[in-house]
Formats: sequence, structure tokens, C-alpha cells
Amino acid sequence: MDLAGVFPALTTPFRGDGSVALDQFKANLARYNQTRLAGYVVLGSTGESVLLSSAEGESLLAAGKEAAAPGKLLIAGTGAESTAETIAKTKRAAALGYNAALIKTPYYYKPAYGPDTYLHHYRAIADASPIPVLLYSVPIFTGITLETPEIVALAQHPNIIGIKDSTGSIQRVVEVAAQAPKDFQILTGSAGVFYAALVSGAKGAILALASALPEKCVELFELFQSGRQSEAQSLQQQIALASKAIVSSGGIAALKHVMDIRGYHGGLPRLPLLPLAESRKSHITQVIAQFEPVAARA
Amino acid sequence: MDLAGVFPALTTPFRGDGSVALDQFKANLARYNQTRLAGYVVLGSTGESVLLSSAEGESLLAAGKEAAAPGKLLIAGTGAESTAETIAKTKRAAALGYNAALIKTPYYYKPAYGPDTYLHHYRAIADASPIPVLLYSVPIFTGITLETPEIVALAQHPNIIGIKDSTGSIQRVVEVAAQAPKDFQILTGSAGVFYAALVSGAKGAILALASALPEKCVELFELFQSGRQSEAQSLQQQIALASKAIVSSGGIAALKHVMDIRGYHGGLPRLPLLPLAESRKSHITQVIAQFEPVAARA
Amino acid sequence: MDLAGVFPALTTPFRGDGSVALDQFKANLARYNQTRLAGYVVLGSTGESVLLSSAEGESLLAAGKEAAAPGKLLIAGTGAESTAETIAKTKRAAALGYNAALIKTPYYYKPAYGPDTYLHHYRAIADASPIPVLLYSVPIFTGITLETPEIVALAQHPNIIGIKDSTGSIQRVVEVAAQAPKDFQILTGSAGVFYAALVSGAKGAILALASALPEKCVELFELFQSGRQSEAQSLQQQIALASKAIVSSGGIAALKHVMDIRGYHGGLPRLPLLPLAESRKSHITQVIAQFEPVAARA
Amino acid sequence: MDLAGVFPALTTPFRGDGSVALDQFKANLARYNQTRLAGYVVLGSTGESVLLSSAEGESLLAAGKEAAAPGKLLIAGTGAESTAETIAKTKRAAALGYNAALIKTPYYYKPAYGPDTYLHHYRAIADASPIPVLLYSVPIFTGITLETPEIVALAQHPNIIGIKDSTGSIQRVVEVAAQAPKDFQILTGSAGVFYAALVSGAKGAILALASALPEKCVELFELFQSGRQSEAQSLQQQIALASKAIVSSGGIAALKHVMDIRGYHGGLPRLPLLPLAESRKSHITQVIAQFEPVAARA
Repeated sequence: MDLAGVFPALTTPFRGDGSVALDQFKANLARYNQTRLAGYVVLGSTGESVLLSSAEGESLLAAGKEAAAPGKLLIAGTGAESTAETIAKTKRAAALGYNAALIKTPYYYKPAYGPDTYLHHYRAIADASPIPVLLYSVPIFTGITLETPEIVALAQHPNIIGIKDSTGSIQRVVEVAAQAPKDFQILTGSAGVFYAALVSGAKGAILALASALPEKCVELFELFQSGRQSEAQSLQQQIALASKAIVSSGGIAALKHVMDIRGYHGGLPRLPLLPLAESRKSHITQVIAQFEPVAARA
Repeated sequence: MDLAGVFPALTTPFRGDGSVALDQFKANLARYNQTRLAGYVVLGSTGESVLLSSAEGESLLAAGKEAAAPGKLLIAGTGAESTAETIAKTKRAAALGYNAALIKTPYYYKPAYGPDTYLHHYRAIADASPIPVLLYSVPIFTGITLETPEIVALAQHPNIIGIKDSTGSIQRVVEVAAQAPKDFQILTGSAGVFYAALVSGAKGAILALASALPEKCVELFELFQSGRQSEAQSLQQQIALASKAIVSSGGIAALKHVMDIRGYHGGLPRLPLLPLAESRKSHITQVIAQFEPVAARA
Repeated sequence: MDLAGVFPALTTPFRGDGSVALDQFKANLARYNQTRLAGYVVLGSTGESVLLSSAEGESLLAAGKEAAAPGKLLIAGTGAESTAETIAKTKRAAALGYNAALIKTPYYYKPAYGPDTYLHHYRAIADASPIPVLLYSVPIFTGITLETPEIVALAQHPNIIGIKDSTGSIQRVVEVAAQAPKDFQILTGSAGVFYAALVSGAKGAILALASALPEKCVELFELFQSGRQSEAQSLQQQIALASKAIVSSGGIAALKHVMDIRGYHGGLPRLPLLPLAESRKSHITQVIAQFEPVAARA
Repeated sequence: MDLAGVFPALTTPFRGDGSVALDQFKANLARYNQTRLAGYVVLGSTGESVLLSSAEGESLLAAGKEAAAPGKLLIAGTGAESTAETIAKTKRAAALGYNAALIKTPYYYKPAYGPDTYLHHYRAIADASPIPVLLYSVPIFTGITLETPEIVALAQHPNIIGIKDSTGSIQRVVEVAAQAPKDFQILTGSAGVFYAALVSGAKGAILALASALPEKCVELFELFQSGRQSEAQSLQQQIALASKAIVSSGGIAALKHVMDIRGYHGGLPRLPLLPLAESRKSHITQVIAQFEPVAARA
């Protein structure tokens, strides 16, 4: 399975009454299908998966499978705190036709967790999973970082095919690219260092920003592929500033706001995530406006 | 509702096949009923609540209600990431006869959360809850600390009656005792500073250690009540060293091991929590042995 | 040497031209001499020692010796990054008649430092020092925390008589009191937990706040000594709020401002420390005003 | 002044009696003069500057000026905690013929410092300095990170020509390259992300590792210049692993050990920095051995 390219971490649209809007979710996918995105991540952090019930999560997985164009790879976020529950969720995703599972580290009992925990947890899951497994290290949310030694050790497992690393550390991309088996695939989760990750050995990216600006993210990937370094550096700057203004500073509420501006179904996040403050909206509108000439170029 | 005294954060025993051992859970309670513990916390962090299914959680709540002696206050851990799910769980706990709900902060989207998030979240829950609410700040697990300003603001709500503060900060106990309404009740979650918390204005404690050493924790509380400062200081030292060796260094696996030593149903934790390493067991046995003469004195 | 009681961490007054105002420094001491402070700390963190030249530091040590009333213990801050320079400074302080040296941890090369570093550093200093040595752990400035095991190990050295612990951790006070030799003296550096530290085994405190409010700090110590717990708890609350508003939120600039209000020579800090923002002054004036009725009681 | 290329952060050799070995320092420079290094940094963090007296520091600056080949740019580390002392040191470096001053952030009073502090501090220095100023952000040692907004603001000053950013963050390189004036020069301080920094807009690097492996660092820079991406990626991997094994894990003691292996004057660090543990030496020898074939290729 070749993960080269850009995967958006899909958002979950909600109706006014708070219920999941599956039709809007599918409408977003219909538009994404027109792009050169490599596939989709359903139930990632950006999808507010920790705020959804199990039933809601499964309905989104089913809708994603139904709406995705042929050829788009489907990755399901199936990580739970418990090893057993993670395995159960991963099996359900496989049964629904997903191509791979993206599994965040467990994180609640962090003082008790260590490299041994992660090795045991991921190996048990990879052994049991009918589909390939991607590690997922996202310390801004979990407080847990997968370090190079445990990544490299887990990369030996035949059913662990890669990692989404959302730490933004290029040092780690370089280290893992140097030490893991050649077919282990690194995806960055940080739009602001996407190009640096690619020149350092990453295969692609899973990006929240790609839910709002898929074409720009794909364009950066393709500039890398065609070796146009100067244009890539310039587009990376725009993407980094946009990602910082939207995703880093405003989170999911801001990302959904930009999706609304750009004609997708964004909407409001679920509580306890608060709606975007009005004061932030004008700043974000400005950032996006600066961005559009480039978007138009695409 | 008077929360003065000691509440153990109850553990969840599992069978060899990984299922919840409700009978063992109730047997533990039967022994605790013989002590002067003020009540019980079911489904707290120590109860591995994040590793349980909803059904397992409800069965434990029901078993706790059934097994607790009359007069023992029952507190249910009902915090979930989503505000709506937290409310739903709190209502179920109330329906099962629980006296109060202990609600940890939401924590996954920490870069997007702030004081406004916590104010909105807890007020929505307290408005909807049929039973009184206790805030719960436990940054070693969540990465989120409730600071004095938001605690004091939330303490004004008539249905928010107190806080379990597991930060170990006595500065915060002093500040909250100074600034919150007089009937707002502070419980510390740190056995090592229990006595300091009491002399600083706390009403009691919710302690993991009290699942293994309930009598010693109660004894410390009673030494405080009777003003025996020198004996309290001395017992506090023993408890602090035991708590550090067991709870801080070994986590739930070590706590359950000590419970086994002391005749309770401890057992193994659920994965990804690993069993206690053999190398740690001898150290812990030593710590406990030093402790027993004091236990015998009780 | 008995360190029981309160030591202010003395500030360094500067003239308008930026030079050290030794006369003002001595005038402050003349007033402090009228109180029941146990002694003085010269060249501590509060004294802006890292902003002074060696010559300025020595002139302050000499002035302190000259101005202190008989019976007041004199403690010199002599910690430098280099072990050799620390020894040299400590010898000079001893030659000037100081009773003890307060030596902060080295901290610049923190990734390379560890318990071994601290053991080696402090033992070399204590071996060479003509006067007793106090450890000093102040992570808010240094990023380095002395943990219980190294404190307890160093406490065995005959020329290491105690520690100033500015972490605010009461857990560590309890642990060290339990494990260090009985004559090892713990001084807290945190005004907000002074009373809790005392009931947990500390002997006294070295407090920035005591440069502005010496009588109140001494009063709290004496309430502890006479076992008046309820009054102590109440005064501790006032001191904690004052300390937070002044020292924690405003730093040295705010402390000096309060000294000015209370008739001491405070003045401005040295750059890069900026003068207190006007917007903070009114808040601090309010905090102090609330405090004065208690001060009057003293 | 064009800072493109590689600058080693020079080490300070000591004799057995602990004194600075100026002759060894100059002998190292004589060898470095044979390489295509762009210049030298004297009195940086790697030079153990915080462990040197003022007189020792000045003697090193003079020796560096004397020994450097014509055309090698000379950068002096002149940052002190006090603004005034930093200005004085910078003027002395200028008088000794240095081309630029590298000035680390102040850091001791970190709770009192903020963006305003850094803006005021650096502007006062840049106004007073006869030579251009480089910002220096090195949180592993200082605990202080210069963030993009203050870097961009300071980059407007005509006498602030660049920054050494040792955070390893490529996100920040991208942001600063996007927002600072075009002639503001970014140097990375992290060997492991050197290539990523270059493709993201950095001009060069100041590297501790370049004191031991100058040719390899220069080779990477030149592979970037000639657009040989695949070879660059491969050499970057080797450099990253070497840098991690030596600089990140072993610090100055390990770096000096590798210098000894490679025929430079390394020697021991000054206390409290401890000599490299024997157990680490064999690991480092292994890392270097893997590296030599590539070194030979150069």
C-alpha cells in the first residue's frame, strides 16, 4: 500500500440539534473526490472522534466508504485507550472496507506508560488487525511522543506500515527514515513542515488543513515531486502561515469556519469545543484572503 | 453534603479472562465497610474507567451501590470528553442512587481548551445534573490544571460543591480556601500532602492509596481532627513514602499488588497497563513491611 | 546553626544612574533589624545577583555584614555555574563574616546535568567551604529541581546543613523530613505554603515577600510556634494571596514597588527586568490595602 | 555580511590544571582554516562560556582573532543576563575585531520575562553595538524560546542581521523566512535538521558538531547548494544520527571526546560538567566508525 500524497483528516459536520450530519459529510467527500488527494482519514482527531459515540463513529465510517471515489485510500482512526477496544474497533473498520487503521497512542495513564507499553500495545493490535496499521504520535493532544527507538522497533512488524507523526519534529523524520526498514512510510501531521518532511524522507501527509485547502496541500506535494524547490519553498510559507493561523491557533472551530468560507460543510464543533470567537474570524478571513491568489493560480 | 474524611478511589478487579469481577469488587467493599472511610469513589482514574465499556461502568456503579454500607457516601466518576455524554453519564449515576458526581476536566483538545471551556462545560453539567458535582483536576493524566480563578468562579454555582485537586499543590488549596464560598469543599487527591492540605483548609481526600491502606489514611485524618500535630506529621511521612513508592512510581499495577498483599482483591490491570515488573515487587514489599508496625498500632 | 524562622531574600536598590545604592540597602537593613527576622540572605535571586558584577556583589556582602544587627544570621548567595567559581565566591563570603552560603544548582547545561552532577558539585563545594552550605533548588529560574534522593544523599555531608526549596512542593518537604538526618534543615522559598511546610517538618523560610512584609511573615511563623492553627490558616491565606499578586505575578519589580509603598527603598530593577507596568500597580495597591488591617494587628 | 555556510561553535580546551589552553585552541583553528568553514563562533554555549571568567573569555577572543585565516568570519558570543553587561561585552568583541555578536536571550528571571523584555533588550544592544547582532534562541539551555512575532519584529532593526535558532523547529524557520525582511539571515543550531532548514529558507548553520566533523557539515551545505537532493538526504541522515549520539546525548564531554578521536584538541570539560562516562565512549566510537567511510569519501 502506497501512502504517497496528501490525506485530509476529515471533519465531522453536526446539525443544529447536535446530531451528526452524514449527508453533509458525504457532500464534502464528493467535492474532495474531484481533487488529487490520495485518500481520506475518517475519525481522526480532527474528526472530533473522542466526542462521538461508537454508533456515530461507525455511521461515519460507513458513510466515508460509501462516498469515497474508487482509488481513494480509506484510513480509519480506531485508537482507544484500551488495547482490546482498539482491536475491536480496528476489526470493525476492516469489515467496513477500510484500507488501513490509524492508531493513536494510549495516553491517559501516562506516568505508567513507557516504551514497553507502546511496543506491547501496538504489536498486539498489529497481530490481530486484518488491515495494516499506522502508528499515530500526537503529543499536543495526548502528551505522549513516540520516540525514534520505539518507532524503529515497531517498524519491523510486517503489519505496521507507517506512522503519522504530528510532532512537527523533522529531526525524528530524518532519524526514522535512516533507521526503519525502507518500506516503512512516514506521514507528517504538520502542514507547516510538510515540504521539509518530504525532503527528509517522508512519503506524504495527513493534514487537518487539507480539509479546507486540499488543492494547495496537493500542489505542494506535486511541486516536491517535480523538484521545483523554489516554488515549493514559497508555497510552503503560505501554507505554514495559514496552518498556524487556522489549525494551531483556532483548532477545529477555526478549520470548520474556513471550510464554510470555502464552500464546504464546516459548521460548529461539538461541546466542550466552543465556537470560534468573533474576534478571531476577521483575522482568519484576512489570512485566507492573502492565500486566495495562490489558490487561484492552482 | 459533608465530604469530610477519606474516600478511596476504588480499583476494578478483573478475572483471568479480562472480564470485570463484580463479586471481588463487592468483597472489597464489604471489608472497607468495616472502616471509618467516609464513602467511595467508583469509576475514578484508579478504577481504570477509561479502559471500561459503558456497560462495564454501569455494572460497577450498580455493584457499588449494592455493596456499600448505609451512611457511606457514593461518588461516581462520570466525566467524558463530550459535555453531552458527561451529562448523560451523570444522570445515570444519579438514577443509580449516587450522591455526587466527580467530573474530570475534558482534555483531548487541550490547545483549544481554556478557562472559558471549563466554565462552560462544568456549568452546563451542573445545571443538568440531578446530583451535586465535584470538579476534578488531575494533570498527571489529563495535562489540564484547573487554576484558582476558574475554580473560584465555578464554586459560585449552587450545584458545584467541591473539587478533587490531584495536583499536589498546597498553594492552590490555600488560594481556593481563601477565595471560594465557605461551603465549597476541597478534597486532595495526593496522599503525600494530605495533612498539609487539611491544615490549609481542605475537608478530606480521595486517595488511590486508601484502597490498599484505608486504616492508615483514616488515622491521619483523625489525628488532624484531634489536633495531634506531631503524630500526624510522623504518620504523614510514612504515608507519603508509601504513596510515592506505590502509587506514584508503580501506578495502578503496584496499588493492586499491595491490595493483594493486604488481602483485598487487587489482581492485574487491563492492557495497555502492564503488570508490575518483578523487580519492583520486592521494593514495594519492603516499603509495606516498614509500614506494618504502624498499621498494627492503629 | 539554627535556621528556624524567617529570612528575607534581600533586594538590591539601584540609583537613577543604575549603580548600586549601598546606603539604601543599609537603610533597609536598619529597619529590618527592628523585627524578629532570623537573619538575612544577601545576593539571592531576589537580589538580582545574576545582574550584578563581582565587585558589586562583594560591596553588597560587605554592606550587609556592616548593617546587620548582632544575632541576625547572615547567608550569602554564592552559587555560580562553575564549581571552582562557586568555591571562590563562598570563600570570599566566609572571609567577610557570613554564617552560611546558599548555593543554587548549576543549570545552564541542563541536558548534560543529572543527579551525579549535583552530588559532585555540592560535595566539592562543601568540602572546600569554610562555612556551612545550604542547597538551593529554584526551578522557576533554573529549570533544575533537586529531587529527594539527591537531597537526602547530600544531607549526609557534615558541611551541608540544609536546603532552600523554592519549588512549592510540600510532598518533597515531607519526604526530605522523613529521610534526611534529623538536623538537616529545610527552608521553604514559597510564602504561599509556608505554614504547610512548617507543619510538614520545615524549620523556616527564605522569602522574597519578607523584604516587603517582614512582620507578617514572622507573625505566621510565631503562630505556628504557638500552635494557633486557625489563626495561622487565616494569615497564611492572606500571605498566599499577597505573594501571588506580588512575587509570582509581578516579580522583583512588583516586590520593589510594594517596598516603596511600605517605606523601604525599593526602586526599579536592573534591565532586562522591566519596570512594573502601570496597569499592575493598581491591582497590587489593592491587594496590599486589604492586607494592612492585618498588618496593623501585628 | 553574508553568513551562508557552516560555522563551528568552537570548544574551549583546558589543561590538566584546569586553565584554558590557548595554544590548543589556536591549533584547532589552524586545522579548521584548511576547510571551507565560513567562519567561527567563539564563546558560544559549546565553548563553555558560562564556566569562564571574563579574563579567560577575552583571551579566547583574542586568540581566535589571531588564529583565524583571513576571510573567515568571526562571531563572538557576548550575551550576559544584564543588558548593560551584554553591551559592554559586545563592544569589547568589536574592539578585538569580531565581525558580529551572537547574543543569547536573557533567561534567569523567566517568569518575569516576555516578548517586551526581549524586544527592549535586543534593541538596546543593537543600538549600542558597533557590530551587527545575531539573536540566539537556545531553549534547551535557557528555557526561553524566541517566537516568530518577536523575531520578525527585531528583524526590522538595521543592526540585527539574523538569528541562530537552536530549537530544531523547522516550522519557525519557515515562518521567519516568510515574514522577516529578505536580508534577515537564519542559521540553524541543529545539525539534525540542517538540510531541512536550508530548503526552508535558512542561510547556514552554527553547529557544535562542526567542531568535530567540519568537513561533513560543509559537504552537506554544498550538496544543498548544488541541488543534489538525494545525496543530501542521505548525508543528513548520517549527520543526524551522529549529532544525536554525540551532541544531544553526550553534550560537550562527548563532543570533545570525538574531537580527540579525530585529532583535534578536545580534552575534558570544566566542572560541574563531568567527563564522559566510559560506558558511553564505546557507543560513540561505533557511531563515528560508521561515519568514517563517508568522511573518507569527502
